[in-house]
Amino acid sequence: MADKFVESITNMEDDFAQWYTDIVKKAELVEYTSMKGCMVFRPASYAIWENIQKELDSRFKATGVENCYLPMFIPESLLNKEKDHVEGFAPEVAWVTMGGGETLQERMCVRPTSETLFCDFYSHIIHSYRDLPKNYNQWCSVVRWEKTTRPFLRSMEFLWQEGHTIHATAQEAQERTELMLNVYADFCEEFLAIPMVRGRKTDKEKFAGAEATYTIEALMHDGKALQSGTSHNFGDGFAKAFGIQYTDKENKLVYPHQTSWGVTTRLIGAVIMVHGDNSGLVLPPLLAPTQVVVIPIQQKKEGVLEKARELADKLGAFRVKVDDSDKSPGFKFAEQEMRGIPFRVEVGPKDIEAGQCVICRRDTREKIVVKFEELADKMAELVPTMQKEMLERARAHRDAHTYVANNLDELTELANTKPGFYKSMWCGELECEEKVKEVAGVTSRCMPFAQENLGETCVCCGKKAKTMIYWGKAY
Amino acid sequence: MADKFVESITNMEDDFAQWYTDIVKKAELVEYTSMKGCMVFRPASYAIWENIQKELDSRFKATGVENCYLPMFIPESLLNKEKDHVEGFAPEVAWVTMGGGETLQERMCVRPTSETLFCDFYSHIIHSYRDLPKNYNQWCSVVRWEKTTRPFLRSMEFLWQEGHTIHATAQEAQERTELMLNVYADFCEEFLAIPMVRGRKTDKEKFAGAEATYTIEALMHDGKALQSGTSHNFGDGFAKAFGIQYTDKENKLVYPHQTSWGVTTRLIGAVIMVHGDNSGLVLPPLLAPTQVVVIPIQQKKEGVLEKARELADKLGAFRVKVDDSDKSPGFKFAEQEMRGIPFRVEVGPKDIEAGQCVICRRDTREKIVVKFEELADKMAELVPTMQKEMLERARAHRDAHTYVANNLDELTELANTKPGFYKSMWCGELECEEKVKEVAGVTSRCMPFAQENLGETCVCCGKKAKTMIYWGKAY
Repeated sequence: MADKFVESITNMEDDFAQWYTDIVKKAELVEYTSMKGCMVFRPASYAIWENIQKELDSRFKATGVENCYLPMFIPESLLNKEKDHVEGFAPEVAWVTMGGGETLQERMCVRPTSETLFCDFYSHIIHSYRDLPKNYNQWCSVVRWEKTTRPFLRSMEFLWQEGHTIHATAQEAQERTELMLNVYADFCEEFLAIPMVRGRKTDKEKFAGAEATYTIEALMHDGKALQSGTSHNFGDGFAKAFGIQYTDKENKLVYPHQTSWGVTTRLIGAVIMVHGDNSGLVLPPLLAPTQVVVIPIQQKKEGVLEKARELADKLGAFRVKVDDSDKSPGFKFAEQEMRGIPFRVEVGPKDIEAGQCVICRRDTREKIVVKFEELADKMAELVPTMQKEMLERARAHRDAHTYVANNLDELTELANTKPGFYKSMWCGELECEEKVKEVAGVTSRCMPFAQENLGETCVCCGKKAKTMIYWGKAY
Repeated sequence: MADKFVESITNMEDDFAQWYTDIVKKAELVEYTSMKGCMVFRPASYAIWENIQKELDSRFKATGVENCYLPMFIPESLLNKEKDHVEGFAPEVAWVTMGGGETLQERMCVRPTSETLFCDFYSHIIHSYRDLPKNYNQWCSVVRWEKTTRPFLRSMEFLWQEGHTIHATAQEAQERTELMLNVYADFCEEFLAIPMVRGRKTDKEKFAGAEATYTIEALMHDGKALQSGTSHNFGDGFAKAFGIQYTDKENKLVYPHQTSWGVTTRLIGAVIMVHGDNSGLVLPPLLAPTQVVVIPIQQKKEGVLEKARELADKLGAFRVKVDDSDKSPGFKFAEQEMRGIPFRVEVGPKDIEAGQCVICRRDTREKIVVKFEELADKMAELVPTMQKEMLERARAHRDAHTYVANNLDELTELANTKPGFYKSMWCGELECEEKVKEVAGVTSRCMPFAQENLGETCVCCGKKAKTMIYWGKAY
């Protein structure tokens, strides 16, 4: 039974895409629906999202962010107000054309993102420098019409948060843009155990309507990149398009500066693809909805179930469950592994005689025998240890798959043979960026904050380089 | 300045509807948008909703509920599967007919409620009695095309939670239906300080597709009723329409039984209309996002601001803020009252000399002088006291506005002269229910669980009564 459960997953080395699909089904993360391109977030994945929300939300609030909620519909005339923005989003929106049995005079789209709504809102409530800044955020779902979809990574509807802030000065907006990018990166590293490259997007890759877009980029186990969060500085472009002005301290009417930033349920996909293995999901302990499952062995024998429950009580400081279902221990082990529960505690009649139980770590499969009275202390030690080691392993994997390319031939060779991040110098010209994509098949990921000197010349044209840049194949 | 702030609200005795509208704007709860019928939940109201969510969610989870998330779109063919349900909802949905630049082959509606999606989902994942029960819930927004809208009470889009459970037996479904109604009622009484009448809806008023609908009904300050939450038992009707079957322990293929239950952001409207007064909002301490605001008097004098911050630190067990803005104390007082912050603590140079400060309760305006060292203890006493007294006052108001009617003349006279709940006996016939509405202008609220014997005959036809019932004018 246990073997059967495990055997049914494809090995990631054989077919990474199929391995991913197998996990999201077998770990009961998603279910497909009659609504093409949309999916059900089942309790196992939604609980992960709730933990992400809770942690991120408290980090947001610590920087002065307040939550609010804006409508899900955008009238077409409102969407059309900022030229670059509408060009970027109009092709991929869903349009509501009928309501209450009647055809609408003006159609409205389901929000693909809410810059236009926030601008409309801010134009109503911002009049004086006393009204600034506003650091608002909302947790909601958005819709983008995608042809090919993939659970968590790309779907027609997804869950996210979108922060939209408005400031008196350009400097303050820039500081907020960078602050939130760092909040994201710290969160991903500390909570999801995923190391991030922090940097700036090229003009080609920036957000529709933004002056500058910043990004965090992660490397998946298969060597592909995943853009994991973005933060945009809009300057005063949206304010001008929407007529948002305020009276400053000198009583002059001026334009404020804006930012927006977001992360999505795609982060769940990142967790799967960075930490998962051929037995299933592996969740970092801080993120895991259930951190420990206690599995009784020969649970029908007298005292076993009682002892399992007693041990769970001892672990009250953690998110703990007892699996007292009528499945076999082997099946329960396989299930715990598939679901990525960080620790299981095994306890049977022989253990009880010896006054001990066995802790098994999901990531390393290490087995640790502990006396009952030492269980809670040991777990308190193992949780941060596993969290830390998962980040270290992910970082080691990323670093081992990060390569330097000095010219286009090298870059093309690397892209064809060694999946990973490719670092190079770049002249900053769109022409080279497009040629790299065409020839090597990789796109620019970001110009990292942590610039390294890899030479003087552009990887593509050989002319004087302006910046160091990351390339990769992206989800 | 302070007076001006207060003067601008209409007295509730003069015009209750305008008073309500004034409060939602002045307390910065909502902002209107370019999207007609939709509104912005500003941070002041969204923080209230977050507190409602947090408390309710933990009460749900204590009964074994798990959260998940289903798509916001419903294909028309799916909506059409249950006859009563589609008749009830089709006239008031918004239809998406275009996506990604193309006209859709099948239009899809934005969910007005998600029974059909949950049934589709359950049909995929439920096969055996081992798969039952599922007690799932989602927090999301829904859309219903309303012609006339009112902040929190009726809007095109609103926020809610919808629980959808599925059970092996009819009895289990009935128990869950009643359990959740009681969770709602207890929550409203203990957390929102709003007393509820718990009961069953008449067949005329029940949910589209339900076998039975249960409701909690509250009385607003103006004597109108507000349906505040509902819980439905669907029997196996939806399961039959959607072909959901499971193999029971005897290996027979049978239909499961389902329930659904929901409360919405309408609860915020109830809090305003039950507790608010002519100075603004009054929030029960357990619900209030900010429970205490410390207001320094003559804050530019040495030591005043420091002392205010020190007092806030002493109140660390509560949600506390210091208002150190450059507004006048009078303006700050008016603002605290408008926003319904339960307590303010005033501290100025004279207080500091005397080693004391003044606590002012929002609901009674009682002023309590306390020594600095006793402040935290006093607040720990005042929070539950105010919470309890708010519920008692609301209950006394409701009871004083609940009347007994013995016949249609009495009911009509009461309905025309004394706003409130009207209790009577009823024969159970639709004809009488409709006649009462036509003649007295009131609708049935519910047949309460707590039945009283008010005589033997129906208030309308005079024939033998079957049940006691509440009537009222409803929002």
